[in-house]
Amino acid sequence: MIKPEEMSDAKKAQPFSAQCPSREILELIGGKWSLLILCLLKSGPMRTNLIMRSIQGISQKMLTQTLRDLEHAGVVKRRSYGEVPPRVEYSLTPLGSSLSVVVLQLEHWVVDHYEQVIKAQTLFDTPQSE
Amino acid sequence: MIKPEEMSDAKKAQPFSAQCPSREILELIGGKWSLLILCLLKSGPMRTNLIMRSIQGISQKMLTQTLRDLEHAGVVKRRSYGEVPPRVEYSLTPLGSSLSVVVLQLEHWVVDHYEQVIKAQTLFDTPQSE
Repeated sequence: MIKPEEMSDAKKAQPFSAQCPSREILELIGGKWSLLILCLLKSGPMRTNLIMRSIQGISQKMLTQTLRDLEHAGVVKRRSYGEVPPRVEYSLTPLGSSLSVVVLQLEHWVVDHYEQVIKAQTLFDTPQSE
Repeated sequence: MIKPEEMSDAKKAQPFSAQCPSREILELIGGKWSLLILCLLKSGPMRTNLIMRSIQGISQKMLTQTLRDLEHAGVVKRRSYGEVPPRVEYSLTPLGSSLSVVVLQLEHWVVDHYEQVIKAQTLFDTPQSE
């Protein structure tokens, strides 16, 4: 019989360990395309074309791959309407919805502290006078 | 004279725009190594060797590069003590400290929802019976 503490150990996510799959999850959701997609879908379901137009610079291939990875992880749901021309829509699952709350905070941090970061980078790149 | 609304527009971060530097900032802080380093430093200043040992699988090159990028962005501070053997310590700046609060929530989300994601991935990979 498995002792409760062993069971708990076996299931515990350890992103600092190279072997733990939780690191891959962290990598997936921390990716810039994932972050931007999760922010977008927080407002409601969205068609693939609109996601593509909303995130400037994302390639069709990267969008498809990221949406598939997010769907695979259970945070995004794909719904295909049997229409002509085909209509495919993505939305957050309840799991994705809880994630999007945190992701939006990260995006807000960037928007709120953007100027401070740019200022720090400029200062860092400026040669110091002797 | 610049109108207030223009000034506000010029300075506003737009991570959905390909040209806005805020996207690079989002990319930097969302990177798995950055996320893990920021989580670690939340507990206090840490020597390079200990960061390296704490994050399994990170290469010396990647650690150096990520720490440098985080220092460049003004979220991490490097302090070199003029000792032999050399001692270099990293800590969060006040800016980094505010970021680490959000980053820690993302890490907590992963730890808390790890099992659900793994379950979703397994289900996705399981061929559906006809």
